[in-house]
Amino acid sequence: MPWPERKLIEHIRRLSRPRAGHALVQGIGDDCAVLRVPIGHQLLVTTDLCIENVHFRRAWHPAESVGHRCLTRGLSDIAAMGGKPLACFLSLGLPARLPQRWVDGFLDGFVGLARRFDVNLAGGDISSAPAIVADVMVSGLVPSGTAVLRSGAKPGDRIYVTGELGASGSVLKQLYAGERVRPRPSSRHFYPVPRLEIGDWLRSKKVATSMIDLSDGLSVDLAHICEESRTSAEIIAEKIPIAKGASLDLALHSGDDYELLFTASAKTKLPPQIAGVRISEIGVIKRKKDYRPAIEILLENGRARELKSRGWQHFSEKR
Amino acid sequence: MPWPERKLIEHIRRLSRPRAGHALVQGIGDDCAVLRVPIGHQLLVTTDLCIENVHFRRAWHPAESVGHRCLTRGLSDIAAMGGKPLACFLSLGLPARLPQRWVDGFLDGFVGLARRFDVNLAGGDISSAPAIVADVMVSGLVPSGTAVLRSGAKPGDRIYVTGELGASGSVLKQLYAGERVRPRPSSRHFYPVPRLEIGDWLRSKKVATSMIDLSDGLSVDLAHICEESRTSAEIIAEKIPIAKGASLDLALHSGDDYELLFTASAKTKLPPQIAGVRISEIGVIKRKKDYRPAIEILLENGRARELKSRGWQHFSEKR
Repeated sequence: MPWPERKLIEHIRRLSRPRAGHALVQGIGDDCAVLRVPIGHQLLVTTDLCIENVHFRRAWHPAESVGHRCLTRGLSDIAAMGGKPLACFLSLGLPARLPQRWVDGFLDGFVGLARRFDVNLAGGDISSAPAIVADVMVSGLVPSGTAVLRSGAKPGDRIYVTGELGASGSVLKQLYAGERVRPRPSSRHFYPVPRLEIGDWLRSKKVATSMIDLSDGLSVDLAHICEESRTSAEIIAEKIPIAKGASLDLALHSGDDYELLFTASAKTKLPPQIAGVRISEIGVIKRKKDYRPAIEILLENGRARELKSRGWQHFSEKR
Repeated sequence: MPWPERKLIEHIRRLSRPRAGHALVQGIGDDCAVLRVPIGHQLLVTTDLCIENVHFRRAWHPAESVGHRCLTRGLSDIAAMGGKPLACFLSLGLPARLPQRWVDGFLDGFVGLARRFDVNLAGGDISSAPAIVADVMVSGLVPSGTAVLRSGAKPGDRIYVTGELGASGSVLKQLYAGERVRPRPSSRHFYPVPRLEIGDWLRSKKVATSMIDLSDGLSVDLAHICEESRTSAEIIAEKIPIAKGASLDLALHSGDDYELLFTASAKTKLPPQIAGVRISEIGVIKRKKDYRPAIEILLENGRARELKSRGWQHFSEKR
C-alpha cells in the first residue's frame, strides 16, 4: 500500500523544495500555488492525463519510465509553443494495493526530469483509484505575443520535423508482439526527452510560423496544423526521417515520439541540425481546396495519395 | 460509449468559447492555452482529482452534480487564497461503456458553474479509463503579495468559519445508510457554491491573517493552519455553527462543506454576515507549546479535550 496521504505529500514536498529566487512564490503546502509571471510574458498551460493500461503498462514500463513519460508529455507541449517550462503539478491516483516502491520509482523518474529542466513541482493532489492515474499540468512562460500556435502556417511554407520518427511506435509494436525490450535510458520510447531547446530556438529566431509536438502521430498532428491554419499539406515519403527499426507506416501513424513538427517560410534557411538534433524538410503547406484531400503524400513511385489521420484516438472503433 | 475523442473535444470547445477581451489569449485548440496575467498580479494554481467510487458514486450523484462538485473544489481553493478565478482545465478519463448522456450531464454541471463565475474552460485532456476520472485545474489571480496563506495565523488571532458545518457530511451519512436523498439545487452536498465573494472581501479588506477552505473537515483543516503557522488553537464547541441535520461530530470531522476557515486579529471587528453568509467566531489561535495538544476543544460541560484530526485521508487504515 502507498504511504498514508499526508506522509506521501510531505515526502513529495521534500523532494520538490524550490530554489530561492524562482518564479514560485508558494509551492506545495497551501490551497493554491502562487506563481510570479514576469512583466512582458504570457503564461502557457497544458494538462496531460496518463492512465494505466491505456498510456502505459506496469508489465512493460518501469515506474521510473512512467514518471518520466508523464512529465515529458507536458514539457513537450511547452516546447511546441516555443516556451520555457516554469512549474508542474501532479495529480496522482493510486490503487491501494500498489507498493510504495512503485510510487518511489515513479517520483524518481518524474522529479529527475523536472530537475533536469529546472521545473518546480509546485502542487497537485493524491487519491486512491482503481488503476494508476497521473494527470500532469505544466505551466510555462513565453514573451507576450510570441507563442508559436498551430494556426500560423501559410501556403508555401515548408514543413519540418526534428529527429527521427517511429522510434517509440516500433518499441510499442515489439511489446505488443510479446517481445522483451530493455528500457535503456537512451530509448525514445521509455525516456523521451522533450525538444525544449529547439522549440525555444525556433520561436526566438522567429523561424517557426506554426508548431505542434508529435504525440499522436505525424498524420494526426499535421492534420491539426492544417485544420487550425485552414490549409492543406503535401509531404514527400522519401524525405521523412524514419527511425532505426521503424517503417514508413510507423513514422507516419505512430505516436509518442515527442519530436516537433513545424512550418517555416520558404525564404527561411534552416541549419541541418538545431541543438545537435537533425532537422528534416518533409513537405509544403498548400492552399486549401475543396476538391483536394487535406494531406497528400508523394510516394517513391511518383504517385500521390491521400494521407488519412490514423493515429491514436480514444473512443474510436477504427484504429 | 462516449463520442470519439475529436468529436468530444470539438463539442467541449464550442461549449467553452471564450468571451472577447478576456485574459485568455488562446483556449482549447493548441498544444497549450495562453493566459495574460495583468501587471501587479500573481497567478494562483490548484488541482483537484475526482474519482468515481472515491469522491462520488454514479448511483448517488447525478452527472450534473459530479461536474459541479469537481469544479467547486478548485474554485473553493481560489476563494481560500482570496483570489479571483481566471480559467479552468479539465482532464477527463471515461470508461468506454459510459453513455454520452452522462458526459453531457457532467459538462452541463461543470460549464454551468464555470459560466456563473465567469471562468473559461481553457483546455484539458481526454482518455479512456477504467472508472470516471476528472482532474480539474483552476488558475486565478490575486494582486501581488496579497494571497492569504495558511501560514499567517498569529497567537491571539480569532478563528472564524463561514456558513454552517456538517451539511455535506450529514447527506453522505444518509446515503451510506441506504437512504434516498433528493439532489436539490440548493443542497450543499450536491451543488456546493464556492465562497469566492467572501474570500475576495476578506483579502481586499486585509481582514484574514490566514485562510483555508473546509474540504477535509474542520479538525483536519484547522490542523493545517496550525502546522503551517506553527501555532496551536482552541475552539469552543458551542460556538460551532452546526448545519441542520448535522451533529457536532459531523461539523468537526466531515468534509466537503467548502466553507472558509480563517483567522483575523483580535482587534478586527467582523460583521455578522459577509455576502449574505453567516460568519461565526469559533475560537482562538494560541502559542505552540510542546506539552499542549495542537488543537483543544472546550466542551459544553466546561472541560477541554484534544481535538484529533479525523477527517478523510487516502491510504489510511484509520478512519
